[in-house]
Amino acid sequence: MRRTKKTKSPALERNLARMAFRAREASRVLASLSTKKKNEVLCAMGSALLEHMGAILEANKKDVARAAKKGLSKAFLERLTLNEKRVCEMAESLGEVSKLEDPVGAEIKTWSRPNGLLISKVRVPIGVILVIYESRPNVTSDCIGLCFKSGNAVILKGGSDAIGSNAAIFGILQKVVEREGIPADAINFVKTTDRRAVDMLLQMDQQINLVMPRGGEALIREVRDKSKIPVIKHYKGVCHIFVDKSADAAMAQKIVLNAKVQRPAVCNAVETLLVHQDIAGSFLPVMAEALQRAGVEIRGCRRTRQIVRGIGRATEADWYAEYLDLILSVKVVKDVREAIDHINRYGSSHSDAIVTQDQQNAELFLKDVDSACVYVNASTRFTDGYQFGLGAEIGISTDRLHARGPMGLEELTTYKYEIRGTGQIRE
Amino acid sequence: MRRTKKTKSPALERNLARMAFRAREASRVLASLSTKKKNEVLCAMGSALLEHMGAILEANKKDVARAAKKGLSKAFLERLTLNEKRVCEMAESLGEVSKLEDPVGAEIKTWSRPNGLLISKVRVPIGVILVIYESRPNVTSDCIGLCFKSGNAVILKGGSDAIGSNAAIFGILQKVVEREGIPADAINFVKTTDRRAVDMLLQMDQQINLVMPRGGEALIREVRDKSKIPVIKHYKGVCHIFVDKSADAAMAQKIVLNAKVQRPAVCNAVETLLVHQDIAGSFLPVMAEALQRAGVEIRGCRRTRQIVRGIGRATEADWYAEYLDLILSVKVVKDVREAIDHINRYGSSHSDAIVTQDQQNAELFLKDVDSACVYVNASTRFTDGYQFGLGAEIGISTDRLHARGPMGLEELTTYKYEIRGTGQIRE
Repeated sequence: MRRTKKTKSPALERNLARMAFRAREASRVLASLSTKKKNEVLCAMGSALLEHMGAILEANKKDVARAAKKGLSKAFLERLTLNEKRVCEMAESLGEVSKLEDPVGAEIKTWSRPNGLLISKVRVPIGVILVIYESRPNVTSDCIGLCFKSGNAVILKGGSDAIGSNAAIFGILQKVVEREGIPADAINFVKTTDRRAVDMLLQMDQQINLVMPRGGEALIREVRDKSKIPVIKHYKGVCHIFVDKSADAAMAQKIVLNAKVQRPAVCNAVETLLVHQDIAGSFLPVMAEALQRAGVEIRGCRRTRQIVRGIGRATEADWYAEYLDLILSVKVVKDVREAIDHINRYGSSHSDAIVTQDQQNAELFLKDVDSACVYVNASTRFTDGYQFGLGAEIGISTDRLHARGPMGLEELTTYKYEIRGTGQIRE
Repeated sequence: MRRTKKTKSPALERNLARMAFRAREASRVLASLSTKKKNEVLCAMGSALLEHMGAILEANKKDVARAAKKGLSKAFLERLTLNEKRVCEMAESLGEVSKLEDPVGAEIKTWSRPNGLLISKVRVPIGVILVIYESRPNVTSDCIGLCFKSGNAVILKGGSDAIGSNAAIFGILQKVVEREGIPADAINFVKTTDRRAVDMLLQMDQQINLVMPRGGEALIREVRDKSKIPVIKHYKGVCHIFVDKSADAAMAQKIVLNAKVQRPAVCNAVETLLVHQDIAGSFLPVMAEALQRAGVEIRGCRRTRQIVRGIGRATEADWYAEYLDLILSVKVVKDVREAIDHINRYGSSHSDAIVTQDQQNAELFLKDVDSACVYVNASTRFTDGYQFGLGAEIGISTDRLHARGPMGLEELTTYKYEIRGTGQIRE
């Protein structure tokens, strides 16, 4: 999405507009497909991936070789690389989605009015969803599965380094869709690597109803700035754990360790530890030792550094930082109020936890911390569609509108009102 | 919001940023106010409007005189003008909102996980809402009331022609807020008429969570294009009624007349009538006569004009038109399928109705018409927060995300997850 000088390409724009228009048409067919039919197609998609394993791995090998030649990082290559196990997981995921409850058509609420009108609020698909993503090829099949089950047409725009793998996966799945008698335009893949394609798609608000950018913060901000279409996004996860005065120290230690080291590179890992001043002297030395044993670098506030010697200083920038690494910033706070204020000021409204035995402080923290997921006595690592029992996850929203926190199938729907009357008119 | 050459004004930007920041802070206080306290404040606000009736009317008189001098239209002046009755209605509205159920804190869903985590999805305020509106001064107090009750801080940017009236109403209500010990920044009013103010506010996505533009389509599109903040909007209402073959003709006639003439200038009035070909010959002459008697101009398709002589021709543009006037376009269609396709193609996803005695066609229409409100055997004029029983309405959304159709207090909230554990960590 770097800026290019040539910003016009009528042929490209025409092609994309046609794709978006057809996706819109197909979305109307998808919206009224039966659950049974959708589940059959999902299972057939899973089988097709396994059947064409060889073609997928071959296309992927070429992507990886090209990326390696370009000198892309080891972590990048790792994310890009597919193997038999990963393709099997992709196929399994599609099978899992087929087993989830279909949100479409569910009655959210029904009531009648004094004039006899019967009003039902009913779940319906959003329509056409554009997903913009980076290097992981499994996102291609995951998004197709979740959008298909929730009755949405999808337009996928993957990263150019994975284009061979993505195109292979997409091609296999689209053939299944066609074979099953569903419009092929129910799932769409942008085959060009022309960076202007995204800019053009983001203007097509007549056809596309939602944009979900997945990737680095810069990509997401650019999409947000350019889009005429509503965007649901997830910038970052600056998650906190506050260890209260009354905390069970062993529990607190276990939770903090889990939230920091079990998988440090993910958005629900903890980045800042806040400790009540009354227990800092006893809690922090033990906690710090355990963290350091696990390879964690600690950056402390002034008071933390008085208690734990030999650690680095946390600057203002550290309180805003999403390390995604074995680094933890630590701050001693006066009380639960200061902890809440710190979190609301520096946090990213993602996931934050209190460890406490004090019921009142627990409830205060739950109410006043303004985040998507607020925990009492549990690890922040549970913020996840599967862990929540949503069955699947298309992403985590740190936005406030439409969906907040883990987004499953239900969050890929909207609603409509069905109103049944017997000739009522407005007086 | 016309473009100006001087686009920078650091002082203005600083002032607005300060306002937005303070609104954000105040929103945290609002979020935890008790329902009782909020209701008391709302009632006090209503009383204050009545108490200061004279000041409001005086300020309004100056606005109206200035607008008249500028040569603004009679309809515009009518919308701008306040009188004792209108101020009483504003006060009553605040009292009504105090009686509505408080959505904040309501548990949407609670479930437990196999590991013992208890997950609750709980309603919370959205945060800070920016409302951009045009000439009606009652919007000032209506929006303050609804945002306050739903725990949101509000920033109001009204039209420059009503600035004296709006400032008077706002000043009176803010004094009540302060007197009741609530941060004054819970409600905010942009006093400048500098057109750059809106552009600046639309960039402040760190502080402002939602923008609701109310007014003409041009204003709304401009806000959407410039905003970094999510926008919920309502472009227009191109509403349809389809009279099916099996319709009760008397009921159909009554509904069409009501939807067209009861109040033609509103968004839920019908603009296009679709009639099944099998009954067009008998239904249309009677219907047309009734409409013409009520002063309605009919613009028909070819077949309509063969049946009803002496009417104008409906062009392609007519099918897209929101007349907001005593004009109706009429088209004869083959069947319910053609009616649905016409509505999904030309409609604005607002409100559409079928009149039929055929249960199967009714259900098909309800499912396949892709609009916020779909009616069977009732007038489209019921799309309204009060008529739906939501108690109040801050607007109608023709968007698909977050809120669709009439928006009441519940639609001014989002949710958070409160998760209660006993030391759970992720394995």
